[in-house]
This record gives sequence, structure tokens and C-alpha cells, in this order.
Amino acid sequence: MSPQQLRIGVAGLGRMGKRHAMNFHAFTPRAHVVAASTPDETERKWAADNLEGVKIYADYDEMLEKEDLQAVVVASVTAAHAEQTLKAIEKGYHVLCEKPLSIDVQIAQSVVKAYTKSLQSHPSQKVMCGFSRRFDSSYREAHERMARGDHGKPVVFRSQTADLLDTSGFFVEYAKTSGGIFVDCSIHDIDLMLWFFGEDCKIKSLQAVGVTAVHHGLEASGDRDNAIATIEFYGGRIASLYCSRMMAAGQEDTTEIICERGSLRVNMQGRKNHFEIHDSLGVRRELPQHYYERFREAFVTEAQEFTASCLEDKPAPIPLQSSVTAVAIGQALQRSLVSGEKIFFDENGLKI
Amino acid sequence: MSPQQLRIGVAGLGRMGKRHAMNFHAFTPRAHVVAASTPDETERKWAADNLEGVKIYADYDEMLEKEDLQAVVVASVTAAHAEQTLKAIEKGYHVLCEKPLSIDVQIAQSVVKAYTKSLQSHPSQKVMCGFSRRFDSSYREAHERMARGDHGKPVVFRSQTADLLDTSGFFVEYAKTSGGIFVDCSIHDIDLMLWFFGEDCKIKSLQAVGVTAVHHGLEASGDRDNAIATIEFYGGRIASLYCSRMMAAGQEDTTEIICERGSLRVNMQGRKNHFEIHDSLGVRRELPQHYYERFREAFVTEAQEFTASCLEDKPAPIPLQSSVTAVAIGQALQRSLVSGEKIFFDENGLKI
Amino acid sequence: MSPQQLRIGVAGLGRMGKRHAMNFHAFTPRAHVVAASTPDETERKWAADNLEGVKIYADYDEMLEKEDLQAVVVASVTAAHAEQTLKAIEKGYHVLCEKPLSIDVQIAQSVVKAYTKSLQSHPSQKVMCGFSRRFDSSYREAHERMARGDHGKPVVFRSQTADLLDTSGFFVEYAKTSGGIFVDCSIHDIDLMLWFFGEDCKIKSLQAVGVTAVHHGLEASGDRDNAIATIEFYGGRIASLYCSRMMAAGQEDTTEIICERGSLRVNMQGRKNHFEIHDSLGVRRELPQHYYERFREAFVTEAQEFTASCLEDKPAPIPLQSSVTAVAIGQALQRSLVSGEKIFFDENGLKI
Amino acid sequence: MSPQQLRIGVAGLGRMGKRHAMNFHAFTPRAHVVAASTPDETERKWAADNLEGVKIYADYDEMLEKEDLQAVVVASVTAAHAEQTLKAIEKGYHVLCEKPLSIDVQIAQSVVKAYTKSLQSHPSQKVMCGFSRRFDSSYREAHERMARGDHGKPVVFRSQTADLLDTSGFFVEYAKTSGGIFVDCSIHDIDLMLWFFGEDCKIKSLQAVGVTAVHHGLEASGDRDNAIATIEFYGGRIASLYCSRMMAAGQEDTTEIICERGSLRVNMQGRKNHFEIHDSLGVRRELPQHYYERFREAFVTEAQEFTASCLEDKPAPIPLQSSVTAVAIGQALQRSLVSGEKIFFDENGLKI
Repeated sequence: MSPQQLRIGVAGLGRMGKRHAMNFHAFTPRAHVVAASTPDETERKWAADNLEGVKIYADYDEMLEKEDLQAVVVASVTAAHAEQTLKAIEKGYHVLCEKPLSIDVQIAQSVVKAYTKSLQSHPSQKVMCGFSRRFDSSYREAHERMARGDHGKPVVFRSQTADLLDTSGFFVEYAKTSGGIFVDCSIHDIDLMLWFFGEDCKIKSLQAVGVTAVHHGLEASGDRDNAIATIEFYGGRIASLYCSRMMAAGQEDTTEIICERGSLRVNMQGRKNHFEIHDSLGVRRELPQHYYERFREAFVTEAQEFTASCLEDKPAPIPLQSSVTAVAIGQALQRSLVSGEKIFFDENGLKI
Repeated sequence: MSPQQLRIGVAGLGRMGKRHAMNFHAFTPRAHVVAASTPDETERKWAADNLEGVKIYADYDEMLEKEDLQAVVVASVTAAHAEQTLKAIEKGYHVLCEKPLSIDVQIAQSVVKAYTKSLQSHPSQKVMCGFSRRFDSSYREAHERMARGDHGKPVVFRSQTADLLDTSGFFVEYAKTSGGIFVDCSIHDIDLMLWFFGEDCKIKSLQAVGVTAVHHGLEASGDRDNAIATIEFYGGRIASLYCSRMMAAGQEDTTEIICERGSLRVNMQGRKNHFEIHDSLGVRRELPQHYYERFREAFVTEAQEFTASCLEDKPAPIPLQSSVTAVAIGQALQRSLVSGEKIFFDENGLKI
Repeated sequence: MSPQQLRIGVAGLGRMGKRHAMNFHAFTPRAHVVAASTPDETERKWAADNLEGVKIYADYDEMLEKEDLQAVVVASVTAAHAEQTLKAIEKGYHVLCEKPLSIDVQIAQSVVKAYTKSLQSHPSQKVMCGFSRRFDSSYREAHERMARGDHGKPVVFRSQTADLLDTSGFFVEYAKTSGGIFVDCSIHDIDLMLWFFGEDCKIKSLQAVGVTAVHHGLEASGDRDNAIATIEFYGGRIASLYCSRMMAAGQEDTTEIICERGSLRVNMQGRKNHFEIHDSLGVRRELPQHYYERFREAFVTEAQEFTASCLEDKPAPIPLQSSVTAVAIGQALQRSLVSGEKIFFDENGLKI
Repeated sequence: MSPQQLRIGVAGLGRMGKRHAMNFHAFTPRAHVVAASTPDETERKWAADNLEGVKIYADYDEMLEKEDLQAVVVASVTAAHAEQTLKAIEKGYHVLCEKPLSIDVQIAQSVVKAYTKSLQSHPSQKVMCGFSRRFDSSYREAHERMARGDHGKPVVFRSQTADLLDTSGFFVEYAKTSGGIFVDCSIHDIDLMLWFFGEDCKIKSLQAVGVTAVHHGLEASGDRDNAIATIEFYGGRIASLYCSRMMAAGQEDTTEIICERGSLRVNMQGRKNHFEIHDSLGVRRELPQHYYERFREAFVTEAQEFTASCLEDKPAPIPLQSSVTAVAIGQALQRSLVSGEKIFFDENGLKI
């Protein structure tokens, strides 16, 4: 084990940026957050108060130029992900980029291309998109059990990402740039699907339907607040994804992998913690209220394992191409959601 | 309350016929099973041993002719359902017919037509198809809560019928006459969907995909062992149905009705009874092994309520047309399952 | 299987009497309720409306004298249990008596004595006290697993009977004749303890503590609304019992049998049915509201199995002496509850 | 918030010492582990590899003498707790001592006395015994709900600490110095009892029974592998504690606080994570295998909150006297466990 710490710069200190910065700064012993950048003054103020010893920049490029880094964590607004990642790749830095690389597949693919090229001169460089569920202990246990093969091959994959109802108008505003519910929410389920069915699984058909039940402004952005997708694979596998923006009790992200002789379930009995109350309403428990409450530990593990993979020159935990494929599938589903059309592919992945 | 008992004849004493016969004979105080018919000698032997005081016939027509009945319970093979029901309708008898009326929509619809006509001369006659889940206390509680409107309108309906894996070849043999997995299994979920979304809900599109993972002989009958359907309704509602013939732990029939401000769940934590075991494998419980183990009580309630509706001339618990619509939807899904095509309907229910 | 039906008279048509009468009348095909008796006019009116074909008496003795019965179900007030049972025993009838035989051990033991004597002239006579939990499928599964020995010997028995809070004053009134919370509630747990640890297990010590938290009138009857007992057995076994009259969510009767290599749990995740609701309060389910809602099916099984044991001359499902021992233990605990003293016994069951 | 870090020395690097050291070193941003001491060479080797920048001592006294510390974490063998804590108190340092202070009440009380005296010259000094469950989010939620008073006063407290069966002989060896199962395991439940019932609650009586079912060597140390305690309080409250060394499925620490109008439950449906498996054995989940797997997060929170209380001169999260009272209760229960006697106290806490 190398005693040395990985020198990291963090780009973006918004909601997710703050969390990533703290996870690397305070909870990843082998990482050293050297610098952070954000154009937002309030966020820089927060950094001054919370990231002791970390140099704060208003400009990402300036940070890259002035600091001697080994890795960059890109946690800025989605629109900046690809560009900031590309710049860090160019410098030969390792990159952990918040998901998605881009809501545009072509742009996302261009990052993979740049990384592939950069590997020639920097063979140890790691570039990874942060799909947090792959670091969650429950998903990992499910994956290990499947991989062990005790239950036969996986046949049906069912997964959902369902957010707590928020009536503030947030989702409507957010939909303008999110890429749509399949690119924003279901992208996690798609990533898991690729992980469980194999990165090389080939889609035969997909289609989606959806409704706008409570957030009526979503229609204007071609989005919906509830949607269901069906995906069919060559080789005899099917998947069903559900996404929602109106869960009444809390965040409910569930997954089932139904194999030939057993099935693996994650979070089918959601709970915030180990507390339960009995009163005149019956027996009740609470759910996590948002994604981070459910997956906080997974994000810390992600920070620690990304750091270890850089320091020890081990493969990054998630292949970069997979994260682009996930966006491509999300986009195709979003198109089907709006058009109603079922889309068929040949075995080379080309639309029929 | 009328002190008199309903005089009943039971047609068919196979697996379900025996259960219906016993439920009316032994557990429905207001019913009197007068006679039963079956062409099968072993079944008649069973009846002689178990249905004390009940006259046993080898021929259904002879039973109808000789016995003074008020109601007939049709529980014979599916292929005989429609014909036997029609004959009983003609005699002016009440009929409880096991689901489905027929796996052919035209035939099923002809029963409704005959019943409608018969009502002119027998205005108190009840004809009902036995969809047992509507008599299950958990589904009823879900329906009452939805109807009360506390949680807003239902938006998404998700439901599954999943049978225990049976490697004896039963499912392959059965598929030859079952009408397919959507007509045989999902028909229950479709019936619930009509109950929860309203008998008058109008389908906008539907499609299905499926695989044959373990029962390879199913392909020959145009069937699959796992299938997923998506259904879209006019007015902003969507549904997802899953059916399977390979559950490893037991029968797993679950339903979720996601409303605008709450969701109603049935059987999401399946269990056979209140027993749980802790040992070196962890904490475990068992599931019901088959449909009847899960819904036995509902079948008894069905017998009792059908009997009461006849004796007291109250509306039958389930409208007959609804059961034909369910078959029509099941058949359309089965077609989509095989063809891969997504089917669109206009608001009059015509294919586009 | 005998085609003949057991001719039964029911004594008492109060809350439990009505249930027993209906269970034998409507749901036990091999039983024929010939007659029923109750001094209460309203109850006789109920019987006239609900027990078709059953002869109704105001006087128990008259029923015994005039009817040709084979068995009597004693479901009258507790104070009459022993006397009515004794009279039926004298006539050579089978008896199913609601628990307890008596709240006085001497009286209860006198019934056993009379039964033992009667067996000399009526060797097929069955007399049994109705401890319903022994007929519950979950407890039976637990007992079978224990008996199979897979988990080693049972070491610790923990069990509770906990009633829904009732602020009407019922419990205070009831306590005047109930024999106290250990004789009335925990008697079920004590019966299970004897079943799981063996009818011949020998108590080494016992003690109890309790409080009166909400039903303050209980103190006047030497009773409490919450109590905890500890019982120690010769041979290395211990038990803990909890009883309560103030559960907020519903009836909560749970049992754990902790064996050397595994533990068996009944009802640790209580639920009324398979329905669950998700709303802004979280995820919740309801509990049964009273004992009968939880154990209704067990009472029906009890009726059926008692009937079968009489008709087929098989041993009664529960040995009568065990039911007297249960009362003796309940009374000793009730004494300890009031005095605070810990009571020690030698191996012959004598107080030290 | 103070930007400064608390300078900490850790005493002891055994099983718990390593965990505490890492929690302060890597996961408590406001703490700076300056030094650590252990007489064990293997542990010092571990420290050299894992505690980068931390000075390692073989001798505790030498560490105290040479290092400029502000706080000491005592995580050595139980026998050294009191002495090392006393030495740190003398230096005016803050102390977090692993539970228990001592298995001897007199010694434990002497630490409180020394601390009380030291406070005169060091009014900001914090000395706390680490009862980790008070930092667990589920217990905290239960406590908040109780404190809010929505459910009325707490009446019955039931709690258990139950370890996974370990057949290596560990428990027998450990029992020689552990103080017994009530002092070692139930001490946590006792601590919670004091927290939920109030630090000033007064015991009226207590008694315990136990058995040695699988670890027969325990008898020699006056210990048992399963034990049940009952505690009665002045003012109308009762408690039942269960402890075990032979759970087959894993660590099972559960607590119920039954209030007048509702009850609060922690961990009644134990689970290791959110994963569940369905196979031919049924539906199953795993439990944590040991105490730390269940409470790891609570230990990190403990480290962070102890650090914050020192830096910000806020009251320590747990009053020191309470931890001595817990040992006193544990010892009394252990005495009753061996003697079988029920012990009564007057309102001044004196034995009657």
C-alpha cells in the first residue's frame, strides 16, 4: 500500500460538489484535496469555512494551470462535465466525473475517444463516471451472488428510481436541462442493467410510455413525471424500468434480478434506518427522503476506491464506455417516451 | 336475510372443481350443493367420498335436465366454460364460471350477449366470472382506500403473477390450451387493472416482450415463460404487468397502485404465514407455493358472496363484460408478445 | 373417514360462544350442531336468526337432558366452564371447553379427575380445553421444526400476549372475574411454553413484576395492565412472558423459541393482511385489532380437529392435564405479581 | 466552528483500539491523532502501516509524558481503563474511555470522583464513557420521539444484546475477565434504559435467571450463555433484558420502548443491508455478524461528537455518572443470576 496521498482538485461545489469535496477531504484518508474551483461566490465562501487548507479558485482553468494535481473530481453542472473532463484528460490527470458525462451521446463519446487517445501517452490514467450504486454494499452483494452462478443466468431485470414528490416546481425547472427522466433518473438503473447483464449485452428493442400526473410543466420540456420502459435483449433477456417524480413516502430505488433458479432483490423493503413506530395508525417506518440519504455510504466508498485505483494503478471500478452506452440507452428511451414508437435494433446496435 | 339455501350444481371436479365444490358444500352455509358432474371416473369416486348427499353425474347435460337447480358453478376445463355457461343461462340459472369464460374473445362475448338477452326473461339472473383476487381482503382494502380518494387519482398500476418454477413439463403441456401466459396468468392483473382504473378506461397502446428461459417447449405454442407488458391509457394512466413461470421461492403475486399522493401495495412482502426461522443462513420465511395457497380464503369469500347475491338479488360482485374485456386485453398482449409489435388504439377501442 | 356427523350441543352464545357455534355449524362439515343453550334472551334471538335448524334452550341442563348429543362445546362465562364440563363428562359426552377450565386450580383439577374416572366406562371420550394457538399454522410449523431437531434443543422461550388499548373501562370490569392478566392473557403463552418445552418440564423458580399505567382501576382487583414474568426450569431452560392491555397499534402476540442452533419466531412482524400503504407518514401496515382477528382460522381448525378426534377416536389434540398446569402456573405468576416475591420449587413441583 | 483540530492520543490498539484510532485518524476531520500507545508489538507494526504521521509508543505513560495532547482515547484492555483514564484526567486531558470504566463499581466510581475534583481546576474538561448505541441514528430517533411526548410516558423497556454463536471457545476465555454477561453485553441495554427512563430513575427490585446451553466452560467463571433480567422501578416502570451468546443468524440487538400510547422499536427486523435473496429455501436476508458491523456508523459519530464537545466546550454527550450506575446495575444482575435471589432496594438505592 502506497503511503502517499492522491493530490485532487474538485470542480464545482454545488449540491453534489460539496458532498464529493467533503468525502475526499474528510473521509478518504489516501486523498488530499489540494484545490477546488467554482464560479459561485457563495460556494467559495462555504469552501473557505469547510475545506480547511484547500486552495479555492473561481476559475477551473486557472486551478488546472496553477495547481500540481494528480486527479480531478468533476462535480459541476452537467453542461460543464464533458469540457472539464476533456481538459483534465489533456493534462494527463485521473478524472472522476459525476454522472452523466453529457446528456448528448456524441459529446459523451468524444470524451471516451479523447481518453483512449490519452492512454497512449498516459497508460496509467483513470477516467471514470461516478455511478454510485455500483459502490453500494447491497448491489455488490447481489452482483457477487449472480456472478457466482448459484442461481443460473439472469433473465429479467427490473429496476426503479423514484423520487419523493416535490411540489416546489423544482422538477419542472430542472427538466429544462436534465435530458429527461430516463437520462436523469433511470440512468442509474440502466447502468446497473449493463453491469448485471454484461457490458456487451445487445438491445433488440425498446419502448417507453409515460404520463404527466402532477408536474404539468414537464410537458413543455418533452418530459414526464412517471414513465415505464421495456427493453429486450438479444440472447433472451428482458428488462423493465420505472421512474417517478411523485413518490409520497420517500426515495424508492429498487432492483430485482430474476435468474433461472433464484432472484436477487435490493431495497424491496425500503427503510431509512432501524427505527419503527407502533401507534394508532399501525406499524410504520420511514424511507430515505432523497437519493443521497440512501446512497451516502456508496459515495464515500466511490471516493475511496477511485483514489485507490489511481494510486495503485488498478483498473477503474467502472469502464468509461459503459457510461456512454447508458446515456445512449436513456436518450433512446426518452425519444420513445415522447414519440410512442417502439425502436428495433439489429445485432450491431443499428436502428432498424 | 333469507333462511333458504341456494341449490347449486357444480360442473367439473378437477383441481379447481374440487375446491369450488368443497367451498360451496362445506364452507358456504347458505349454499346447498345438490349435484355435481364430471366425465372423469376418478373424480366421481372422489365426489362419492367427499361430497356427502350430493348427486353425482357423468354428464353435465343430464345434471341440468334432471336436477332442480338455482345456480351452476362451472369449473370444468377451460374449453367447456362457455358452452356449459350458455346452457345454464338458457335454463335461467345463476352462473359462477371459473376464469376465463373462453380464451377466445368472440366466444366470451357471445356469452355476454346470451346473458343480456336472458335477463329480459330472468331479470334476477346473475352470471359472473370468478376473478378471485377481487375477494381478497388485502386487495379490497387497497380498493377502498383508493376509492376514498385520500391519495388522489391512481396514475400507475404495476402488477405481477408469478408462479413457482415447475420442472415437470406441466407448463409446456398446459400452454397448448391455456391461451398463453397473458391470458392465463396476467388475466388476474388485467382484471385488477380494470377494477382499479375503472371498467371504462380506454387503452391507447400496448406492447409486450418475453423470453423462454427454462421451459423451452413453450415456443412451439407461441408462449413464453417470462413476459412484461406495458399498457397506456387515454386520460393519463399507465400500467406494467409482469408474469413468470419460474419463481424459485414460490407464488409471488404483487400489485402496486401508485396514486398522486400515496401508493397502495399488496403483497410486496410475501409470506406463507407468520412463521420465520433464524439460522446460519440468515433470517428466512417461506412463500405460498401456489395460487390457491395464497388465495384460498378469497375463493371461500367468492362462494359466499356469489351465493348471497343470488339469494338476495343484489348485483353480482363483478360485471360480466369486464371479464370479456380482460380476455381481449390478454389476447392483444399475447399477440404483441409474439409479433413484437406495439399496438395502438383510438378512443373507440379500434386498432389504428 | 366416517361419513357420519358428530352431534353437538353448544353451551353459551356470548362473544366466543357465537364464534364457536358458527364454526361448528357452518365451517365444520363433519359436525352437526343439534342444539345450543344460553340464559340470555338476546343471544337466543341471535341463534334463531343464525343457527338454522338448531334447537335453542334457555337452560343447559334441559339441553343435556332432552337432546341426544355426542359432544358439548362449553363456551359460556368462565365461572360456568367447570360445572358444565363436569355435567357433560358425566353423560359420557366429548367436551371442548373454552379456556380456562377454571381460574381456580383445584376446581380445574377436579375436572381432570372426573374425566379420568369417566374414561373407565367411556374409553373413547375426549375432553379438551381449547387453546387456539396450538391450531395456528405458524405455531405448528415452529413446533414441527423444533421437533425435527435440526436446530438443537430449545433453550429460551419468549412469548407475549398484548391487547389493543381499550379505554372504555372494559379491562377494569373484566379483571374482577378474569383471574388476572397472567391467568387470562399469558395463559396462552404458558400453554405454548408447555407445548414447546414438553408437558413434563419442571419449574425451578418464577417471579413477576408489573405496573398499572393506564387502567388504574385494575389495582383494586389485584391486577396490572403490563406485566413481565420470568420462569426457570430444571434441566436448563428459561422463559420470559410479557402481557399488556395497552398496545397502541393492535393485538400483538409474538413468540420466540431460541434453540441451540437456530431460533423459531412467530408473528415478529405482525400484520393484519397483505396490504401496505405508502404516504407522507412513511410506509405502514395495520395489525389485527383483537385476538380473534389474528386467530380466526385457528379456531376453525380447532373445531374441525376436535370433531375428527371424536369421530375417529384419536387422541384429543391437547392433553387435559396440561390445561390445568397452565392455570396453576398463571395463578402462581399472578401471586408473584402482587407480592413481588420470587417463588422456588423443588423437583416435585412443591414450593420451597 | 473552530478551525483547530483536537490533538489526540490513543491508548490501546487491539480490536476496538484499531477501530477507534482509524475513526479519529481518518473519519473525524476535526481530530488529529498525534500519538498512540500499545505494549503489543504486532499492534505497533499495524500502526506503523496504517496510522501515517502518528507517533507510536510502547508505553502509555511515556506517551502522556512526551506528547502535547488535548485528549486521550482509552481503548486498551478493560483492566487498564480506569487507571489510564485517571492518569489522563490528572493531566487535565479530555478522555473518551471504551465501556466499561471498570467491571468493579468502586473503581469506576473513583474515576468519577477524580473527574469531579479535576473539574475545579479544568472546568472545560470532558470525560465520557463510550456507549455507542446512544450515537446510533435509530436509537436517537426513538429517543427524540419519546422526548417529544406524543406517545405518553414510557412504561415498559425491553432490550436485548445477542451475539452470534462462536464455538471457538472465545466466550469461555473472555468470561474470565469480562465481568459476566450482564456487565459485558447487557451493559448497553442498561445504558439505554437509563437514557430512556431518565438517569435519575430508581430501582425497586431486580432479579435474573440464566442457563449455560452451549458454552459449558462459562459456569466456572460464574457466567451463563443466556440470561434474562427483570427490573422494577419506583414510579411505575418495568424492564426486561435478554442477553445471549448463541444466536444462529447473527448479532441481534433489539429494543422496545412501550409508552402509554404508542411504542418505539429499534431493529426488530434486523438486516445487514438492503439485499434479499429468493430461492428454493424461501426469502431470506442476512444479519450483521457482530456488534461493530451493526454499529460502525455510531462509533464514527461518537468520535466526531466527542471531538466537537471538546473543541466547543459543550457538555459531553453522556454523563459519566450514568456509566458507573450502569456497571452497578450490571453487577447486581450478575449476582442475582448466580444466587437466584431477587434483590430489593429502597428509594435511596440501598438494598433491603
